[in-house]
Amino acid sequence: MLPAGDRAFMEKMTQFGDMPTDDFRRYGYEIVDRLADYFERIEEFPVLSQIQPDDVKKALPTSAPEFGEAFSAVLDDVDNIILPAVTHWNHPNFHGLFSTSTSSVGVFAEMFAAAFDMKAMLWRTAPASTELEDVVLDWLRQMTGLPDIFEGIIYDTASVSTMHAIAAARERADPNSRKSGLAGRADAPRMRVYVSEHVHSSIDKSVITLGLGLESLRKIETNERFEMRAEKLAEAIEEDIAAGILPICVIPTIGTTSTTSIDPVAAVADICEKHGIWMHVDAAYSSSAAILPELQPLFDGWERADSIVMNPHKWFFTPFDLSVLYCRDLDDLKKAFSLVPEYLRTDDAASVKNGMDYGIQLGRRFRSLKLWFVMRYFGRAGLIVRIREHCRLARLFASWVNESPNWEVAAPVPFALVCFRAKAADTDTANSLNEEIMRIVNSSGKAYISHTKLDGKITLRLSVGSVHVEERHIEKVWRLLEAAFEQAAK
Amino acid sequence: MLPAGDRAFMEKMTQFGDMPTDDFRRYGYEIVDRLADYFERIEEFPVLSQIQPDDVKKALPTSAPEFGEAFSAVLDDVDNIILPAVTHWNHPNFHGLFSTSTSSVGVFAEMFAAAFDMKAMLWRTAPASTELEDVVLDWLRQMTGLPDIFEGIIYDTASVSTMHAIAAARERADPNSRKSGLAGRADAPRMRVYVSEHVHSSIDKSVITLGLGLESLRKIETNERFEMRAEKLAEAIEEDIAAGILPICVIPTIGTTSTTSIDPVAAVADICEKHGIWMHVDAAYSSSAAILPELQPLFDGWERADSIVMNPHKWFFTPFDLSVLYCRDLDDLKKAFSLVPEYLRTDDAASVKNGMDYGIQLGRRFRSLKLWFVMRYFGRAGLIVRIREHCRLARLFASWVNESPNWEVAAPVPFALVCFRAKAADTDTANSLNEEIMRIVNSSGKAYISHTKLDGKITLRLSVGSVHVEERHIEKVWRLLEAAFEQAAK
Repeated sequence: MLPAGDRAFMEKMTQFGDMPTDDFRRYGYEIVDRLADYFERIEEFPVLSQIQPDDVKKALPTSAPEFGEAFSAVLDDVDNIILPAVTHWNHPNFHGLFSTSTSSVGVFAEMFAAAFDMKAMLWRTAPASTELEDVVLDWLRQMTGLPDIFEGIIYDTASVSTMHAIAAARERADPNSRKSGLAGRADAPRMRVYVSEHVHSSIDKSVITLGLGLESLRKIETNERFEMRAEKLAEAIEEDIAAGILPICVIPTIGTTSTTSIDPVAAVADICEKHGIWMHVDAAYSSSAAILPELQPLFDGWERADSIVMNPHKWFFTPFDLSVLYCRDLDDLKKAFSLVPEYLRTDDAASVKNGMDYGIQLGRRFRSLKLWFVMRYFGRAGLIVRIREHCRLARLFASWVNESPNWEVAAPVPFALVCFRAKAADTDTANSLNEEIMRIVNSSGKAYISHTKLDGKITLRLSVGSVHVEERHIEKVWRLLEAAFEQAAK
Repeated sequence: MLPAGDRAFMEKMTQFGDMPTDDFRRYGYEIVDRLADYFERIEEFPVLSQIQPDDVKKALPTSAPEFGEAFSAVLDDVDNIILPAVTHWNHPNFHGLFSTSTSSVGVFAEMFAAAFDMKAMLWRTAPASTELEDVVLDWLRQMTGLPDIFEGIIYDTASVSTMHAIAAARERADPNSRKSGLAGRADAPRMRVYVSEHVHSSIDKSVITLGLGLESLRKIETNERFEMRAEKLAEAIEEDIAAGILPICVIPTIGTTSTTSIDPVAAVADICEKHGIWMHVDAAYSSSAAILPELQPLFDGWERADSIVMNPHKWFFTPFDLSVLYCRDLDDLKKAFSLVPEYLRTDDAASVKNGMDYGIQLGRRFRSLKLWFVMRYFGRAGLIVRIREHCRLARLFASWVNESPNWEVAAPVPFALVCFRAKAADTDTANSLNEEIMRIVNSSGKAYISHTKLDGKITLRLSVGSVHVEERHIEKVWRLLEAAFEQAAK
């Protein structure tokens, strides 16, 4: 038998309606406090969760509860089961992959967005979301120095943004594909998408998804700075055209994932313009740095793109997910994707923008709110000083690496990522040494670094991007690396 | 010159770091209060925003602020500019499209998810998210009565879930397509995907995206209950096979968007099994009702599917977005999408699940948390009584329509959507009449209904699904409709 109190609670839980608003207030305050404590204590947590696989699964029941539970029990489990299994992306010593973090105001925006719970398929179903999206994307366009011909649309991730860009390129190159598809058509040529060897894996996934196949992706050789060689691109395109293959898209990257190398966008634009090929610029990571006047030259040529992807969720203190696709002509996307079933037909379609017309997703979250909060709370100047500081910290770290006899910098540092490695007699020894150093640092919980492979050599990556990062954190990870070197080189 | 106080504030805003945690607490409480007030006052708001196009744009500056603003100013603008432009999906008289709403605990989960800001590409980068996803999807599988062979993955929207299902079907039918694509291959047959006339538009978008083309979609005739005619499906498949076209996927829907009609899934399964065709069941809307024991028969046959899409963000009080794709063999997705670049290679790949392997998106939000909160706070019983009540209210409304001389029910009501229309002498008059009624109701701000077209007739749709809805709300919208009828029929 259940105690009477529990039974009363369970009965309440099987009534209609939502949580009483008094409880909403009480638990809401409590969560705000917990999150404030979390941000205050962020450096006390291990960066990489130290749990073992299946620890969370083992700690939870195998079925949902029959009756509702007191929400305090849920909060206890967040503390005891979830929190130890969190990898702390906000930790200032998260230097792996790309270091990203939310900001407080980003969390606030997600509170409103979740509470309003609008689905922005139609202007009518979410006017605030639809219009604010246009406003903040124009603000961002100005801040990054793009001409006003560019109009944007918000998606979830760069993978999805880029897939839409390539789909629009395919539509332009072969307008018949929307109706007739690609298979079994005598008039449908094989198509080609050009990228550098250092392109992001999402583009491989895009060409799979779009039915172009991995063979449609031609990876162009890079130079010693890991930048696409424009003359090799020109040759490849000429060769493909001669072979009856249709070039549909070139994707130069400004800030590749491995090394943040910068493909020669202006030279690529020359080639694309000559052949009438869609140029999509992947600036998912780097675009935040375009707001620094001194770094604008690194973006030279992107204003000639047909489309550009930027990820404010990466390095703009905006919680995941929010990726922006800017297009020279947003109608290219509409041509590829728009179709309106009767149940979504409205009488205002000519006078308003309906988000659903620009992509595969119908419903769309109110993502623009968090970007708006971030831009207003920090201001352009506040964002500039933070991004600039991250770049300075990366260069500072690179200078320590350069000055040390044990280490070397492995690639240029145009933004806030340093590729570096411990030196050893030969490549195999160096690879083992660097893997061991990475293992030691990451398993300490004190910092997280990741790796890539450059010319066959395991290369460590240190990314600086958290809103919480300061010089002392970079000093700390350098000390950890030096100690790990000593330990691993023994 | 700026006043000294403002200048001090601006200087603070160009320092490094995030909002001080004291401010986070203060503003956090304030937002909790505002949201509690919002939920308490939800019925005072017009359901459909009553702003005019461009009102939001006109109210906002054309550029981002140079210096950060006090967050209180941002909150004021949320009240004055954003709130009037919100269409209130949580309003109990939101009956358009599908009525969906968040719950309080859904908002709480989004607070944690935004604050942790994990990107769940790898187990290592988000163990809590990766493991909790498996746990809650197994809970949901049990609650909806699916056999334990099914394993799920969370995406953002049903459009994306379904696109992945068709991609997996394509991979199975033509494993060469991943590598070689579909164009210009002598061995790549034209493919066909079969749906009913009432299929959701997202499937049209999926076949465009996947390079199959709109012609690959064969829409099978429906019967007088708007259900796919299985014998017509069988004929279409035989005909296509004879013509050298490869059937790759059949998508029966349980709960179509227009009318919530139910395709004969078991009969479709027979046909799919006979020909070895992938069966993907679209239960995006209806799946929440599968937790009602008395409605389980409506889902007969879905346990034979290769994949099933369910949208907890529709009718399970879970804030947008959260769509689940269940697969009989999740490796089908992995075969289609997995590829691991060096910078994402980890030594634990054999022992853990990495979310990025199952789709196009690399980073993935911590979406499982909100489904977990919802299932724990309401419990299975609490969810059942709410969904059951929504179905009862829809049947009650349909009974009023049936009893009235002015109105007719236009389709069966298996779940919580009623298709109905005002009667008139002929179709044209009826169409104008119903459009005018819809206009009157929606522009009143007191309720929102939407429409579809059935056999050429404009048909109104009343969906019941908000966590806040009670019988009095259904009575209210019925009174509004009756009054609008009187006004429009004059």
